Amino acid sequence: MADRQKHLGLFTDLYELTMAAAYFENQFTAKASFELFVRSLPRERSFLLTAGLEQALEYLENVRFGEEEIEYLRRQPVFGHISDGFFDYLRDFRFTGEVWAVPEGTPVFGEEPLLRVTAPIIQAQVIETFLLSSLTFQTMIASKAARVVEAAERRNVVEFGSRRAHGPGAGLLAARAAYIGGCAGTSNVEAGRRFGIPVFGTMAHSFVMAYAKEEEAFQRFQQLFPEHGVLLIDTYDTLAAIDKIIQKKLHPTAVRLDSGDLLDLATRVRQKLDQAGLNQTRIFASGDLNEFTIADLLARGAPIDAFGVGTALATSKDAPTLGGVYKLVDLESETGIVYRAKFSEEKTTYPGPKQIFRFPDGAGTYRHDIIGRQSEKYSDAVGLLELVMRDGKRIAPSPCIEDIQKRASEELKKIPATCRRLRDATPYPVMFSKELENLLATVRQQTLKVAEAEYS
Amino acid sequence: MADRQKHLGLFTDLYELTMAAAYFENQFTAKASFELFVRSLPRERSFLLTAGLEQALEYLENVRFGEEEIEYLRRQPVFGHISDGFFDYLRDFRFTGEVWAVPEGTPVFGEEPLLRVTAPIIQAQVIETFLLSSLTFQTMIASKAARVVEAAERRNVVEFGSRRAHGPGAGLLAARAAYIGGCAGTSNVEAGRRFGIPVFGTMAHSFVMAYAKEEEAFQRFQQLFPEHGVLLIDTYDTLAAIDKIIQKKLHPTAVRLDSGDLLDLATRVRQKLDQAGLNQTRIFASGDLNEFTIADLLARGAPIDAFGVGTALATSKDAPTLGGVYKLVDLESETGIVYRAKFSEEKTTYPGPKQIFRFPDGAGTYRHDIIGRQSEKYSDAVGLLELVMRDGKRIAPSPCIEDIQKRASEELKKIPATCRRLRDATPYPVMFSKELENLLATVRQQTLKVAEAEYS
Repeated sequence: MADRQKHLGLFTDLYELTMAAAYFENQFTAKASFELFVRSLPRERSFLLTAGLEQALEYLENVRFGEEEIEYLRRQPVFGHISDGFFDYLRDFRFTGEVWAVPEGTPVFGEEPLLRVTAPIIQAQVIETFLLSSLTFQTMIASKAARVVEAAERRNVVEFGSRRAHGPGAGLLAARAAYIGGCAGTSNVEAGRRFGIPVFGTMAHSFVMAYAKEEEAFQRFQQLFPEHGVLLIDTYDTLAAIDKIIQKKLHPTAVRLDSGDLLDLATRVRQKLDQAGLNQTRIFASGDLNEFTIADLLARGAPIDAFGVGTALATSKDAPTLGGVYKLVDLESETGIVYRAKFSEEKTTYPGPKQIFRFPDGAGTYRHDIIGRQSEKYSDAVGLLELVMRDGKRIAPSPCIEDIQKRASEELKKIPATCRRLRDATPYPVMFSKELENLLATVRQQTLKVAEAEYS
Repeated sequence: MADRQKHLGLFTDLYELTMAAAYFENQFTAKASFELFVRSLPRERSFLLTAGLEQALEYLENVRFGEEEIEYLRRQPVFGHISDGFFDYLRDFRFTGEVWAVPEGTPVFGEEPLLRVTAPIIQAQVIETFLLSSLTFQTMIASKAARVVEAAERRNVVEFGSRRAHGPGAGLLAARAAYIGGCAGTSNVEAGRRFGIPVFGTMAHSFVMAYAKEEEAFQRFQQLFPEHGVLLIDTYDTLAAIDKIIQKKLHPTAVRLDSGDLLDLATRVRQKLDQAGLNQTRIFASGDLNEFTIADLLARGAPIDAFGVGTALATSKDAPTLGGVYKLVDLESETGIVYRAKFSEEKTTYPGPKQIFRFPDGAGTYRHDIIGRQSEKYSDAVGLLELVMRDGKRIAPSPCIEDIQKRASEELKKIPATCRRLRDATPYPVMFSKELENLLATVRQQTLKVAEAEYS
């Protein structure tokens, strides 16, 4: 994984480095601020849940360019006119900036900045690609997980998707984000070890198939894992498998269904288990599940106690990307800070450093958010962006992952329930402040004036 | 990235390790064969293009359990009844098996095995998760890339999606797979260095916004990158930007459009460039492109010379998962090799080691495939699965990535064009051999007999 590597400098887009070279050669050393946000939520989402900040900060503390990386760059024809000075600069490259961010486990919405970097412009630019992919991927998965967990109505949901994730690294990060979103744990063992997440597992069809008789596989597994054994019963004939378990007087913690009509099978399996006095044996279901199939199963009364969710969760299958962007909002100049915005037809960005002001209604729920200028004050609102890094160093230790999960659960409950519905959710109200709109208008006018001056 | 790490043993699902412990404690050391395949293609795909084998083999040669990993496992309550012997076994764990695989850059279809592992069952089981996520992710991206490149009709397509990929590791692997699928290169610099892929870049809106005047940004960039500069012209007003470039007598290699009506803008920009004698300046387009928008732009005559494709490509957005599975197909026993299959209602798997036989029609095109038993012979067919690893070591050096890309391009051309259409493609004919169907019937009957005997 990236976070274990020594030199992460090249984990970026080439243009970040050509722009860096251009800034360097032009002695453009001004500090700049960039904000990272998701323009709009995918159709299938009514909120996002932040995750991935930990990996982003780890990267910022460790990003370096090694000799091998620098030599590689030097050999690229595009850098043919770039001086040695730039490569010396890369050799000593450190991130020395300031970072404001929304803590992990916070519900957020479209246009709300998740993070702001203020640093010499080269530094602030080079880190764009890594920050975007770290923050938006985990945020996407945590958001999906929160939906799945909500659908499961407090039953355990285990993240099972590593094999279908976008490579081994994605599986690891998906497990972390899914836990933040409320999952009970993951099947990914390295994620368990590295992030301190509970790990869960059952057995595969191959284990059943490896023995001549299904009940032999069950017996041998149950003997070794008496308190943790989950027996997979759908390899051949689900109901026959349950009969064997009963006949052989096995008392598994749980049995797992992985195919077929889960409502019907769970109902019959529950009946058989109860008739045999195995009331303690729980039913665990998996097999291409998502928030909608889970909600449907439970609405129809399926006696399922826990769910394993793989592909849909680890890839956020119905909304597999977030439109995360990282935009310049201000810049030091000889005359002080100047604000920057982009005004192309489709995509306007707001200038200047911002704060998300979240307004509680006094009854335990949030009423709305205002995206305003950082300098604004609202006595009845909470500002979500916090200073997390100064001079390239974290200013406080990271919260443990249980606390992040707890925060997520508590904060989500404060978002109105209608805004969290799986389908047809009411949009949570987010507005731009008057002051910010005024600043946008001013910057727009200045930009137009410059443009006119050029043509006059 | 995973491939740089020392100990990859825990990059797996917990159940692989509980099953491993159960096999170990029961002295179940028989060799088993597992085959990895994609059950069926997503609705949006008519072929897959294999990729990711290189990372899978690298993993197999290097998978280990370090002390820290073993201690972590030992502390998990689920292993409470497992002997020290098992942890000693993990300490010495090596993959010592045999691997057959379809070479990277080969078109394949649903049900066709991409890889077969034969190894002592614990080894063959533990590696499942990593193999699946390595092979199916890159295969998915290479397949998407092949579609995008086909749509671009030999114009260059550059993979630009790292920032939207599923984390930094996914971005790196996506760049590799996209190159195999026919992309000209990637924006991901580390992918360029590590895999020897050409890297490309332009400039960001922030670079234009960092200067008070747009033309100053253009001039400074053009001066430093005279042969490689691609100027981004949509930050404020695309046509005004082109006028500035002409007025200032800049001669950029290319200009980039990233928003707006690309057909209209490209047409007007081309006109302006040509009128000013800048016939050599190419037009590069990006902005939420995919195979359909590219095909549409070109069909309507957009004078675009190259494309940057990000999100849609690096996440295979319209089909962001492949249903990859890894199934037990045979097993050593006291009486020789026994074949295994799974017969649950929805998901039958075929038993025994297989080969994909691909039949050329003698005129440079492939007619159909037969999935048969490994032992079958067809004088007029090519067998796609090749022996790539024996005793845990590769038997030949890996092909270089250019050769893989070349193979992909050549082999794709041999698939009938109707089977490669972007929409409504004719399914390429794939059948199971008579011998394999017979084997399935035999194994099914044996399994039923065992089941009956148990109940009698």
